[in-house]
Amino acid sequence: MRIGDKDYQSIWPDEGDETVVRVIDQRKLPYYLETKELRSAEEVYDAIRDMTIRGAPLIGVAGAFGMYLATLEINSRTNIREHLKNAARYLISCRPTAVNLSWAVNRVLDRLLTAQHEDSLSGLALKTAVEIREYEIENCRLIGMHGMPLIEEVSHAKNGSPVNILTHCNAGWLACVDYGTALAPVYLAHDKGIPLHVWVDETRPLNQGAKLTAWELGSHGVPYTLITDNAGGHLMQTGKVDLVITGGDRATLQGDVANKIGTYLKALAASDNSVPFYCALPSTSVDFTIRDGRAEIIIEEREEEEVTTVSGLAGGTIQTVRICPENAAASNPGFDITPARLITGFITEKGVCRATEEDIKRLFSDKLINDGRGSKV
Amino acid sequence: MRIGDKDYQSIWPDEGDETVVRVIDQRKLPYYLETKELRSAEEVYDAIRDMTIRGAPLIGVAGAFGMYLATLEINSRTNIREHLKNAARYLISCRPTAVNLSWAVNRVLDRLLTAQHEDSLSGLALKTAVEIREYEIENCRLIGMHGMPLIEEVSHAKNGSPVNILTHCNAGWLACVDYGTALAPVYLAHDKGIPLHVWVDETRPLNQGAKLTAWELGSHGVPYTLITDNAGGHLMQTGKVDLVITGGDRATLQGDVANKIGTYLKALAASDNSVPFYCALPSTSVDFTIRDGRAEIIIEEREEEEVTTVSGLAGGTIQTVRICPENAAASNPGFDITPARLITGFITEKGVCRATEEDIKRLFSDKLINDGRGSKV
Repeated sequence: MRIGDKDYQSIWPDEGDETVVRVIDQRKLPYYLETKELRSAEEVYDAIRDMTIRGAPLIGVAGAFGMYLATLEINSRTNIREHLKNAARYLISCRPTAVNLSWAVNRVLDRLLTAQHEDSLSGLALKTAVEIREYEIENCRLIGMHGMPLIEEVSHAKNGSPVNILTHCNAGWLACVDYGTALAPVYLAHDKGIPLHVWVDETRPLNQGAKLTAWELGSHGVPYTLITDNAGGHLMQTGKVDLVITGGDRATLQGDVANKIGTYLKALAASDNSVPFYCALPSTSVDFTIRDGRAEIIIEEREEEEVTTVSGLAGGTIQTVRICPENAAASNPGFDITPARLITGFITEKGVCRATEEDIKRLFSDKLINDGRGSKV
Repeated sequence: MRIGDKDYQSIWPDEGDETVVRVIDQRKLPYYLETKELRSAEEVYDAIRDMTIRGAPLIGVAGAFGMYLATLEINSRTNIREHLKNAARYLISCRPTAVNLSWAVNRVLDRLLTAQHEDSLSGLALKTAVEIREYEIENCRLIGMHGMPLIEEVSHAKNGSPVNILTHCNAGWLACVDYGTALAPVYLAHDKGIPLHVWVDETRPLNQGAKLTAWELGSHGVPYTLITDNAGGHLMQTGKVDLVITGGDRATLQGDVANKIGTYLKALAASDNSVPFYCALPSTSVDFTIRDGRAEIIIEEREEEEVTTVSGLAGGTIQTVRICPENAAASNPGFDITPARLITGFITEKGVCRATEEDIKRLFSDKLINDGRGSKV
């Protein structure tokens, strides 16, 4: 999407140096726009771990490129099968909650393990990673196309008054490769001239809403207002939210969703105030092998420092301030589970469906049969 | 309550200089313990406005002392009635959501307006303010006595495993004069040797949880863990919260509560997970003149800068960092309304009651008849 006059994406293979994959360094936003070079699976792992890059679809694509970078280390003494399997296991271990990551990494791995001797492994890995990247871009564009009518409908019902959409965390193009998931319908509706306004949850602890979503929307010219994570319930109570659209790190077959911590609270408020609550996600974020999100999804516990400190700009530099007593104990679950009963529907590349096993199966019936993931069901 | 070995309160008339009222400067906590002198109604107004002092009971007491300080300005040319009425109106205008403030200020005003000519107005005002202060301390102690059995019961049911209590914002002794409201039962239970642990919501935008509640609890030796405002729902879903206890800035006759923004979201999560949700407040925070909180309570919209920035300690000094793009628009509602249906009960100085008009009327029947507030019902 646009930053001023220029179109950007969040990850791309370097045009000049084929040993380099480039990403936007999301830790520097919204203060500085910088790119970072990734040259190995380790650097991909670290970039995911330290939040240089984040967002379920993006880290899936990054994982695929991580497998490509791992192939560049192969030489005549390498046990290729073992090397590739280790690389895949290592990359997946970085973010156990994200199903995209394991899907993308395993897709590259499978291609490599079944390759013929005459194939160039690195060529095959790069080709597959690029395909996955294109696939995620197209998925996001389709999510936008399918979600836009939901916004348009509200716009008609409000006689063209701005549609107020609340979103949590960052599920925009920075979280994906382009368009975004939750924000794809927003961008497409905005570009079509439908008046709208986005309430942006700051999304503690890492403030991806305040830092990334606000920056993305502002850079593209979409009107938004930043709020604390505490404010959404009040806004819904007072009729100031027409739609909630979030992303989803992982959805289950029965329609539960693991997403950024705090999503569940917004879903409760939406339900209590009859505000439609949609999760926008590509089918790569649906884990067809599990049903009960609360019982079956492991919630990552992250570092305490993310809670006890906040980073931002002061005096022209990025600084980290401690917001609590020294040595305060903190807990930092990274995700929560929103049960299907609180979700109005999913916006996916295949279309919109209710958050029920029946509808999910119907929508993804091709997927379940054709793309090799059906065997897991 | 204790800070290390010493007992403290949040406001007191200076022992040496009777033109001075002293408060703990809560903007400096948890980094520095400093007191501030208040010498006029204007300084009381500013101290409330800039959050040097906050918390419904405390600002009520401060308002009463503000009226006392206003009497010190009376001289032979003063139109006393007009001066006092102006001072009262001015002080009350500072925080329209808080019923304690208008109650305490009007109580001093009424005494002064009905005083005999031989009375010393400043003597009478000081005496009344001191009485209100003692009254709030005793109310908090009684809230603690009535609330403690709720914790004790859970402790018995858990065979002495630590009782996990979640609280939002700061409703401890810093918000009151001593003991606190939500934290009074916690302190009394802890002092009695009941094992417990408190989940402390950081409470954006001003982080009173991270800064004040964490500091209070730590200073008194109560085990706690700091969490983001987003985390409570997940903790309740996973059985890690036994009780929620918050304060309440203003409760209505039918049991709705206005409290710090975000309280409503925690009440929704508590209800969804069958976790008991209590509001602890003195009867001075109950507004017997209104029923429907959402329709009748004005929610204060505060400065955008509280949302766009965070303050904390870096390099040994308190610094403010911007967490979003420059010129980001922000909205900052200070409170939200938790409807009575989500509240298990109130913990008050008169005892515990359900959040229904019937129970509230029964519990406060004396109050409604005897203390001059009954006429408003």
